[in-house]
Amino acid sequence: MAYREIWHEIRIKASPGEIYQALTDVKKLAHWWTTETRGESAVGKKLEFSFYGQSTKEMVVTTLEADELVRWRATERSTPDWVNTEIEWKIFREGDQTFLHLRHSKWREDAKVFAQSSMHWAVFLLSLKEFVETGKGRPHPYDMPVGL
Amino acid sequence: MAYREIWHEIRIKASPGEIYQALTDVKKLAHWWTTETRGESAVGKKLEFSFYGQSTKEMVVTTLEADELVRWRATERSTPDWVNTEIEWKIFREGDQTFLHLRHSKWREDAKVFAQSSMHWAVFLLSLKEFVETGKGRPHPYDMPVGL
Repeated sequence: MAYREIWHEIRIKASPGEIYQALTDVKKLAHWWTTETRGESAVGKKLEFSFYGQSTKEMVVTTLEADELVRWRATERSTPDWVNTEIEWKIFREGDQTFLHLRHSKWREDAKVFAQSSMHWAVFLLSLKEFVETGKGRPHPYDMPVGL
Repeated sequence: MAYREIWHEIRIKASPGEIYQALTDVKKLAHWWTTETRGESAVGKKLEFSFYGQSTKEMVVTTLEADELVRWRATERSTPDWVNTEIEWKIFREGDQTFLHLRHSKWREDAKVFAQSSMHWAVFLLSLKEFVETGKGRPHPYDMPVGL
C-alpha cells in the first residue's frame, strides 16, 4: 500500500443541495469545521481553515459540480502531513436517503497524523450533519473532544 | 492497494489498564459497543456483538497482551464484508497522555460497508472514551446516529 486513505460515510436528512451549500458557502463551512474559515469557494481559488490561529489547512478548490461533488487539494500552507493530499466530497441519493462520502486520499504511508485526522474528520462529519439538519453544528473550538 | 484499512486514534483520560479492561471485560464491552455482547475474552475464544439481534459480528480473540494490545479476527458469523478482517487495539502512553489506536485491516477493496463502518467505529470510540472517563458510554442502541 503506497498511499493511505480516509473514507467515511454519513447519511443526512437533507437535500443534496443543502449539503452542497454547507460545503461551498464560506459562512456555512464556518458553522461545522472551524469558526476561523476564510477564502473563496471557486475552482482555482483557496479556502483557509485555521485552528486557534495556529494549525492551518489551506485548500485549493479543484472541482465543483453543483449538488454532487466537491474536491480540494491541500496546499503547502497546510499541516505538513496534509500537503498535496486530496479531499473529495461526494453527495448522492439512494432510495429516499441522502449520503455524503468523504474521501481524504494520497496520504503518505508514514504520515504521523493520519489516525488522528481520521478521528477528527468523523467528529466534523457529525457536526456537519447536525448543522445541516438543525442549523447548529459543532465547529472548532466547540467540537467534541477526541483528545484531552 | 489490495486491501483497505480503517485507522483511528483517540486519547483517553485513563490508565492503559482501565482501557484494556473496557476492551476485554465482556460486561464492559457491553457499555460502549453494543448492549448485546456475549462470549469470553480469552485467546482462541469467541466474542459475539449483536445489533437488534440481527446484524452480528463474531470475533475470535487472537492476541491479548495485558494493558497494551488486543487483536480479534472476524469469523464467518459476521457481516459478510467483515469476515476475516482483523481488528487491533493498541494502547500506549506518550508523555502524560494515553492513546488508543484502532486498526481494522484486511478489508477487501470492493467491500460495500467500509466507509459506513469507518464512521461507526469513530462513534463507538467516542463512546468508549466517554465510558472509561465517566462510567457511562453510548452503546448500541443508544449510539449517536450517523444514519437516519
